Amino acid sequence: MQRVSEADPTTTFQGVDAATGAPLEPSYPISSLADVDAACAAADAAFDAYRATDPETRAAFLEAIGEEIVALGDALIERAHRESGLPVARLTGERGRTVGQLKLFAQVVRDGYWRQARIDPALPDRQPLPRADLRLRMVPLGPVAVFGASNFPLAFSTAGGDTASALAAGCPVVVKGHPAHPGTDDMVAGAIRRAAEKTGMPAGVFGHVRGPANALGAALVQDPRVAAVGFTGSRGGGLALMKLAQGRAVPIPVYAEMSSINPVLLMPAALAARGAALGTAFVGSLTMGAGQFCTNPGLVLAIEGEGLEAFTRAAVEALTAHAPQPMLTGGIRAAYAKGTQALASNPAVEQIACGLEGDGVAREMARLFTTDAQSVLADRALGEEVFGASSLIIRCRDLDELKAVIAGLEGQLTATLHMDEADHAAAASLVPLLERKAGRVLANGWPTGVEVSHAMVHGGPFPATSDGRSTSVGTLAIDRYLRPVCYQDLPAALLPAELRDGAAGPRMIDGKSA
Amino acid sequence: MQRVSEADPTTTFQGVDAATGAPLEPSYPISSLADVDAACAAADAAFDAYRATDPETRAAFLEAIGEEIVALGDALIERAHRESGLPVARLTGERGRTVGQLKLFAQVVRDGYWRQARIDPALPDRQPLPRADLRLRMVPLGPVAVFGASNFPLAFSTAGGDTASALAAGCPVVVKGHPAHPGTDDMVAGAIRRAAEKTGMPAGVFGHVRGPANALGAALVQDPRVAAVGFTGSRGGGLALMKLAQGRAVPIPVYAEMSSINPVLLMPAALAARGAALGTAFVGSLTMGAGQFCTNPGLVLAIEGEGLEAFTRAAVEALTAHAPQPMLTGGIRAAYAKGTQALASNPAVEQIACGLEGDGVAREMARLFTTDAQSVLADRALGEEVFGASSLIIRCRDLDELKAVIAGLEGQLTATLHMDEADHAAAASLVPLLERKAGRVLANGWPTGVEVSHAMVHGGPFPATSDGRSTSVGTLAIDRYLRPVCYQDLPAALLPAELRDGAAGPRMIDGKSA
Repeated sequence: MQRVSEADPTTTFQGVDAATGAPLEPSYPISSLADVDAACAAADAAFDAYRATDPETRAAFLEAIGEEIVALGDALIERAHRESGLPVARLTGERGRTVGQLKLFAQVVRDGYWRQARIDPALPDRQPLPRADLRLRMVPLGPVAVFGASNFPLAFSTAGGDTASALAAGCPVVVKGHPAHPGTDDMVAGAIRRAAEKTGMPAGVFGHVRGPANALGAALVQDPRVAAVGFTGSRGGGLALMKLAQGRAVPIPVYAEMSSINPVLLMPAALAARGAALGTAFVGSLTMGAGQFCTNPGLVLAIEGEGLEAFTRAAVEALTAHAPQPMLTGGIRAAYAKGTQALASNPAVEQIACGLEGDGVAREMARLFTTDAQSVLADRALGEEVFGASSLIIRCRDLDELKAVIAGLEGQLTATLHMDEADHAAAASLVPLLERKAGRVLANGWPTGVEVSHAMVHGGPFPATSDGRSTSVGTLAIDRYLRPVCYQDLPAALLPAELRDGAAGPRMIDGKSA
Repeated sequence: MQRVSEADPTTTFQGVDAATGAPLEPSYPISSLADVDAACAAADAAFDAYRATDPETRAAFLEAIGEEIVALGDALIERAHRESGLPVARLTGERGRTVGQLKLFAQVVRDGYWRQARIDPALPDRQPLPRADLRLRMVPLGPVAVFGASNFPLAFSTAGGDTASALAAGCPVVVKGHPAHPGTDDMVAGAIRRAAEKTGMPAGVFGHVRGPANALGAALVQDPRVAAVGFTGSRGGGLALMKLAQGRAVPIPVYAEMSSINPVLLMPAALAARGAALGTAFVGSLTMGAGQFCTNPGLVLAIEGEGLEAFTRAAVEALTAHAPQPMLTGGIRAAYAKGTQALASNPAVEQIACGLEGDGVAREMARLFTTDAQSVLADRALGEEVFGASSLIIRCRDLDELKAVIAGLEGQLTATLHMDEADHAAAASLVPLLERKAGRVLANGWPTGVEVSHAMVHGGPFPATSDGRSTSVGTLAIDRYLRPVCYQDLPAALLPAELRDGAAGPRMIDGKSA
């Protein structure tokens, strides 16, 4: 396995206890640019051998990563808790999700749909010209740079969804560990290395660099051997990576999940039937994980009336009693404070609730604001993400005004409808608009739960992601790291195994599933 | 139907007879920037209605376009022949391909695989958390800007592969007609409009602008309602569109097919067995359509020896006797002359054959050059495309040197192996390298024939295309204009028809084809 940066670190860095702000032992070496170069060289050298692994071998590697993560035991959860401030129960669930995600991608590799095998048999007697034998499969793009995310130190980080889907596709991965959880990152990177060793993967299939400087990530994205980038984080960070990737001699795809305010639409009949219950449930979704979910409901839209008033009263009550947990980092806390202050000082906006003040550092009160639709239509900035437990209720006069607000929103990860049967006609007129704006449209639930499955989409039009044609969660995420290759009249001996006549696995023959 | 620019043209432009350089009647109005705006507005307005069309209706529209093109009769072929200089037989074949392509996409729309319908049924009793009902389908991106290509005035132009695949996906299309064949473009645009009217498509489903200025295309790519771009043309043109698309407030995907030199590898046993025959056949592929195919074999690699000498002798003989046809435009001819002069004046390169001189304007002699592998390794510019009937034979000392040349090449549309059974071991070591470089790997054929089918890939790593994850020919081309949307717990009444329980069509349930 490629272990970079440990030979001669020029300097080191430490994690920070999210609850106290105190530095956490031990120190970790900061990777150098030479480390980035070495990791990319090793990944490139491993690429052909790794992509040639048979499905069972590759699946076993993915499963072994999960087993090694489980074998880290409670020490992993404890470390992630201290570094992120996220509750132990949440992190335990996140570990289950991370391991389950690796297992699911192992199954994807075995099932073989991802190969998209297609065969158009030769038609030697066709007039006016014969048809050659044509066979298509997906092949991996090459080494993938993955950036760990701060808000999911397990499921979106070192061995998270980007890593799992890229490895499943047959791409070596070089992870840039997130500097907010270096201990968690170090433990998980070790688990991946052990799994690779135990399952006989080529050296270089997993590379790892770390440190607080942006230059490290920039060097990774600019390395000519890197073929794609997976990122979850801020809009500024994602845009910077896109720019770097597009400025290369050979531009590469960047899958950056960046910014989403996740509108929740409360339809009149649902509001009338259970406005207060919705208000309470809404605050539960809003404050989960200190509101630090990509799918946090940062915008609520409803038509004015008694239902909305009941919703608002219940939400204010629940939020006012909410005790905060620490935010992930001081930087995120500062950005949250700045964003909520901007809302509070906007004359068109009223702050209607504020959560309890927390003890210790990095605890930020949840906030609830309200405004009217005309103000939002006049000031697009009101639709921008404030990362954390802040939300804005937009009072609309009627359905048309609500639609106008939706039409003016940027791309989103999710859009949610709360509705009853009497709302269906109005909702039906909204769905086409919502599916143009968001990657996931959900009904009578909250967007903060993201299932890892075949039909999930965790993506959406820009700026929710840099590439709305993709998802970063669910099995379709593997498609991000693949490209098609056609083999024309290649002798059977030279064809990839899965494209030979009679090979097992799903395939399309002459355009029909076979 | 949206007909732009005919109300008050500020000026007009004319086609040019490729054989004589004389202007062709009639004049056509140059579209204004207001015309671009109007076409994009109409396309955007048509989007929801068009994407909601049922498969049969949309398929009928695509087929009707083909019927209207056929109904144009020989006048279309004659006009295309005069504007492009391409032979009538070739254009007749190209018309068949264009119509066949529309029919194939109609079948794709009916078959429904492109929707990628996926259902993960709800698991209400799952522990620790229930699973919601999740359903996924692909939806179209939005209005697509298509740039007609000069070298295929039918199959890659106004109603070509980009238009057919985008319309199949449910995207309205705004075509920027290629100014080198305005008459052909005008006739085909009329055919599309008539087909749209006859099949009851929403106004705006097809928009059309034209004129020689780059500003027109730039405005189209920058229009905020345009969601994707399809382009086949020069590297400079493609890079310019990529930059414009990335510089938008909302960046959009550009599918530009740009530049490829299409290496042909002659393996020793094949060369020994039939070197001379290969040389003659090679010149046939090289000079087809004045070498103006994207997949023209611009590079030949082989290990030195008697077989290569026989190949070269036969190629020289065939090429020397080749009488040219006019090139597509004066600009393309000038670029070809410049590129071949640069090769001829390179001290490391020897010109070994030159075709016959043609009569009239825009006829450029075919050229054959040779050099050795070390020179190519020292000068990457020798691997750059010269668009036209020019090719460079690279003499390699051994297989390792040949591999080094391949490894140094940029991304390609195709890579070709000529081989016998005794070559298989060496070829097997080349295939992994070739599939990293090219979108199509072919054996014992020539790259200039591109089948329109399910398993075709006409794409490849940058700079062959701007996006190596895609193909612009074959049914997989539809994927370029789609994005996934997940519907979570949506009541059946609000679900898209193809995602309802019991709906017809292919789907994946819980990760398995059903």
